[in-house]
Amino acid sequence: MENKLILLAHGDGGRLTHELVTGLFLKHFGNDILARLTDAAALQLDGGRIAITTDAFVINPPFFPGGDIGKLAVCGTVNDLAVSGAEPRYFTASFLIEEGFPLADLERVVASMARTCREAGVEIIAGDTKVVGRGQLDRIFINTTGLGCLPPDRDLGYHRITPGDLVLVNGNLGDHGMAVLARREGFGFEDQIVSDCAALNGIIGELLRALRGIKIMRDLTRGGMATAAKEIAAAAGVDIWLEEQAIPVGAATRGAAEMLGLDPLYLANEGKFMTVITPEEAEDAVALMRAHPLGRDACIIGEVRAGRGNVYLKTALGGTKFLDMLAGAPLPRIC
Amino acid sequence: MENKLILLAHGDGGRLTHELVTGLFLKHFGNDILARLTDAAALQLDGGRIAITTDAFVINPPFFPGGDIGKLAVCGTVNDLAVSGAEPRYFTASFLIEEGFPLADLERVVASMARTCREAGVEIIAGDTKVVGRGQLDRIFINTTGLGCLPPDRDLGYHRITPGDLVLVNGNLGDHGMAVLARREGFGFEDQIVSDCAALNGIIGELLRALRGIKIMRDLTRGGMATAAKEIAAAAGVDIWLEEQAIPVGAATRGAAEMLGLDPLYLANEGKFMTVITPEEAEDAVALMRAHPLGRDACIIGEVRAGRGNVYLKTALGGTKFLDMLAGAPLPRIC
Repeated sequence: MENKLILLAHGDGGRLTHELVTGLFLKHFGNDILARLTDAAALQLDGGRIAITTDAFVINPPFFPGGDIGKLAVCGTVNDLAVSGAEPRYFTASFLIEEGFPLADLERVVASMARTCREAGVEIIAGDTKVVGRGQLDRIFINTTGLGCLPPDRDLGYHRITPGDLVLVNGNLGDHGMAVLARREGFGFEDQIVSDCAALNGIIGELLRALRGIKIMRDLTRGGMATAAKEIAAAAGVDIWLEEQAIPVGAATRGAAEMLGLDPLYLANEGKFMTVITPEEAEDAVALMRAHPLGRDACIIGEVRAGRGNVYLKTALGGTKFLDMLAGAPLPRIC
Repeated sequence: MENKLILLAHGDGGRLTHELVTGLFLKHFGNDILARLTDAAALQLDGGRIAITTDAFVINPPFFPGGDIGKLAVCGTVNDLAVSGAEPRYFTASFLIEEGFPLADLERVVASMARTCREAGVEIIAGDTKVVGRGQLDRIFINTTGLGCLPPDRDLGYHRITPGDLVLVNGNLGDHGMAVLARREGFGFEDQIVSDCAALNGIIGELLRALRGIKIMRDLTRGGMATAAKEIAAAAGVDIWLEEQAIPVGAATRGAAEMLGLDPLYLANEGKFMTVITPEEAEDAVALMRAHPLGRDACIIGEVRAGRGNVYLKTALGGTKFLDMLAGAPLPRIC
């Protein structure tokens, strides 16, 4: 390790991130809770069953079509709690700001956070602010930590996944990553593609209250849907077979991704989640999602089969493609 | 606010920080818990009484005499919980890293965090890593959020302070700020001054278990002892009278501060706390502290009198000086 340097890919949510987490953080910090590597850590504290998660947001630019770093910093942490089965409640917010950042922009960000908190039903109850000199940080970074309650009967986890389970998503993939990239690079189509940034605790709460057959949920952020599918397959020791033609991607994002040689399955989302569910309840779950504003394009995109942790994509042309985790960082700073 | 820009002083823990917190964050995020503006927020969650605090660490340089950004990121958050009366337990850690940062340096930081966690009896149970491009962040920033248990009988607070109470510190002031400044600017005396960076939950726990007369505790970080005294006086609606000759400052820090025209009372500490306590128990508290390795130079430095929120310093020459919050940022990025 002596001469190795941190690469952008160490932060892209793919293979090198995974190596950093297991080879460095787990090696030194190792404990039973952290070792589970879940979206939110579940713990007992003073009698209560709590979920906690933390996330840093460094998105560039801080204002983008469909949102801003403040909205994102709330939604991202709400969603990590929600997919773990927790009901998000209390948040901390920590601001890192570059000297010379306009106060009016800071107020826009803070007002956006406050609005998103109200919509998601969470409260910011502690915070911190640090200012660093010009050139020592790019405008503004935000860290949020979220606390939620874990209902006693919630039992999501890889151990519950079995062959035959179906795989669902709540809508079009790749819009967030493409919207941010388009705005940043000025490709000219930035008005057509809007980030899907949204707090998912409402729609997820409805699903979890109505259905018992949900095995696991994952939000599809860094690394996109494909990386999440690979992580689920590997952790559960099963294969996941996805149908390319069933996977929803919006026309504008599909077109832009083709033009740029990017795969929407690896682009980040900030308002999409994957659900693995028993086949008996899959149609009910799709119907419930479609009745919610954040699930109108929900659909079944694949199934779980016995296997050894691989993800396969049945292509539109009848072929089969092997999907691995994202490797390399084509799109840094998308969250 | 339209044309105003963020200044370094917005992050120095003094007057402008206070304005940002009350004028912007409280305005938008306002709720009962946040409005208390305590070192750690106390809340009820699923039956448990919990304290939570969050802190970003941007110290420059990341390695300094007496510590590093990793040790600091654990101690700072441990101390915020400890002075609020909580027993620190579970931590999250979020890393912001510049592309090209040496992996070996990251491992030094992570190993230091892990060692400090073990010493303080806390566990890191969730985390996040973001990498940004070269020049978009200065090496490494860390955010920690800490959760602690609040024993049911703990009742620290400004409301308990009354005239006659005494003011204590656990040792020499200003070493952290001066050690970091000396290392950063290369004044040549950096080997003589070592940061006091330490986890205070051990010594504070002993005091709280042994004595009932402790009214409030504060760790003396950004803004130093003087700013903390001013905040306590203002919040409690009393005056605090400090004896300059009683205030402990090490010879090397005193000499360096005089040379540079800095006041040790406004320099940051990372292993010092102020205690306001009934006069009956003050001597016991000093004795308890002096028996602990982190309290060998503990002493009484002043007293509470009826008043209107002012802090006065009785100088060695018999004069009286008025102490206000820190204003301006002579020393950015000391934590």
